[in-house]
Amino acid sequence: MRKDMLMIDGLQYVNWNRQLFKEAQKSGVHTIHVTIAYWENIRETLENIGTWNRHFINNSDLIMPVHQAADILEAQRLGKVGIIFGFQNCSPIEDDVKMVEILHQLGVRIMQLSYNNQSFLATGCYEEQDGGITRFGRQVIKEMNRVGMVIDMSHSAEKSTLEAIDISERPIAITHANPSFFHNALRNKSDTVLRAIGESEGMLGFSMYPFHLKNGSDCTLEDFCMMIAQTAEMIGIDRIGIGSDLCLNWDYKTLEWMRSGRWTTSVDHGEGSADKLSWPEQPVWFKGAEDFHKVAKGLEDHGFKEVDVAKVMGRNWLSFFEKSFSGSLIKS
Amino acid sequence: MRKDMLMIDGLQYVNWNRQLFKEAQKSGVHTIHVTIAYWENIRETLENIGTWNRHFINNSDLIMPVHQAADILEAQRLGKVGIIFGFQNCSPIEDDVKMVEILHQLGVRIMQLSYNNQSFLATGCYEEQDGGITRFGRQVIKEMNRVGMVIDMSHSAEKSTLEAIDISERPIAITHANPSFFHNALRNKSDTVLRAIGESEGMLGFSMYPFHLKNGSDCTLEDFCMMIAQTAEMIGIDRIGIGSDLCLNWDYKTLEWMRSGRWTTSVDHGEGSADKLSWPEQPVWFKGAEDFHKVAKGLEDHGFKEVDVAKVMGRNWLSFFEKSFSGSLIKS
Repeated sequence: MRKDMLMIDGLQYVNWNRQLFKEAQKSGVHTIHVTIAYWENIRETLENIGTWNRHFINNSDLIMPVHQAADILEAQRLGKVGIIFGFQNCSPIEDDVKMVEILHQLGVRIMQLSYNNQSFLATGCYEEQDGGITRFGRQVIKEMNRVGMVIDMSHSAEKSTLEAIDISERPIAITHANPSFFHNALRNKSDTVLRAIGESEGMLGFSMYPFHLKNGSDCTLEDFCMMIAQTAEMIGIDRIGIGSDLCLNWDYKTLEWMRSGRWTTSVDHGEGSADKLSWPEQPVWFKGAEDFHKVAKGLEDHGFKEVDVAKVMGRNWLSFFEKSFSGSLIKS
Repeated sequence: MRKDMLMIDGLQYVNWNRQLFKEAQKSGVHTIHVTIAYWENIRETLENIGTWNRHFINNSDLIMPVHQAADILEAQRLGKVGIIFGFQNCSPIEDDVKMVEILHQLGVRIMQLSYNNQSFLATGCYEEQDGGITRFGRQVIKEMNRVGMVIDMSHSAEKSTLEAIDISERPIAITHANPSFFHNALRNKSDTVLRAIGESEGMLGFSMYPFHLKNGSDCTLEDFCMMIAQTAEMIGIDRIGIGSDLCLNWDYKTLEWMRSGRWTTSVDHGEGSADKLSWPEQPVWFKGAEDFHKVAKGLEDHGFKEVDVAKVMGRNWLSFFEKSFSGSLIKS
């Protein structure tokens, strides 16, 4: 395994501070797609972006914004962590298609068309029925395609996801989820979705979030690498990466916010349950970004070629972002 | 026809001013459900309510707010027009179930779960697919039932409408639409929906908006009354009223706003078309609220009994609002 291997994390949700930026930089991960909205409206999102603008000033020795794919290589060269802004919902654009370009101008490069619930654009994976991509959704996909913002369907329901793949002129991503064949959960993806991602030259980022793993927190690195090998066989070694879904430094109230937002008067326990009111425990082999190397080693031990390990750990995301962030390229 | 017959209009959308309040009062219509939001978010809706608060002060000789059904009879006694606040969309509550009670406290008594597009709660009649009532939708229905806010499905799609009827503990309304058997349009309602409204003790308000009428602006009063007779036979004389959908004093830009909101980069022509960029012309027998009497006369001429004319023109809405606005009664 080469020491200068490019490593990209397709999704983290961290309550960042200078100490955590230091740890991220030390981990050797060169670029992270960070979540800056779940339920936030436009005003609240602008506030979050404003906070990040301060982060970039106060931690300019450790992090830098990624606005185009070349910035990822520049971050690697400078020994900094590149930061890609992303939303886990479309709540920031509210009811206004014009907000897509505004938010792109402010650096946002990835947006999910829904979180777990029905959005204005698509259906979330926790809804009982899936009406697919809406009229507004079609408009937003067109606009995201135009400006170069990645469509992420990680939390969306199956029909909506397949329609998004079909409607979008660019490949789409599932930044953080696992195959259902590995662990059957609402958030994981069927063979049909995986194949559609593969055929459309999209990307799947494998998640280390316990609720997405076989045996949860007890999932072994061997099982995880076996899943990656099976998925590579199914949809191609070029279509997969890591999207760890690493959550750090949040209290339980934040998990409640993610699950219940403002939409319910009762408590929604999401993937958890009433008798386990805490964040799930990470598997021993992936406690944080510093364990990215362990995953690379695990893939090597499983028999992946060096070039393929490099693809899964970062090169595939780089190629995908090269196609996705440019203002002109479309699905090949 | 008795001169003191109670008359209620189940929906108007008027750009109100003192002159129009005078005309409404002169028309003999005792209470009007007025539209105060299509796409407005909470901030914009509060502004609209603020404007109405000024209307009530500046025109206290002509209009008064209706917060409970008894206020309708009080308005009639005082010779004023009672005003019921309603939304043609759920955009005012944004993503927050708690806004239902807030808006109820401010006088809102009727809310559609969707306009023509997919909302957070339900699917609109212009969508290609209908996923029914969402998770958030179920929460909002429960809350509207609790506080006493009428669920209006006038612009919603079929499955969503049937599910709302089923889920709601109180009867719901379709304040302004016609049967599809009369004129087949996306906005009109199937026999299935009409029967479900009838069986659940809900209400249908007949619309005089040309796009909902057989032969559009050329629809005759005889045909309109025939439709009412057929619907009465189908779902019962107690389940129907008038919801004229009268639109007055708006320029074309407002119609564009209603149709396109902020959700599309291209123009959506809704029920109209690109070669007819204007509000549709009202049928000659219903140019404004002053023609309510003509409709009553038309029903009489068609053979309706006096007591039944009174029901259709206002008494049924009164009974429905008596059940709907109270804080305790549920579906009988």
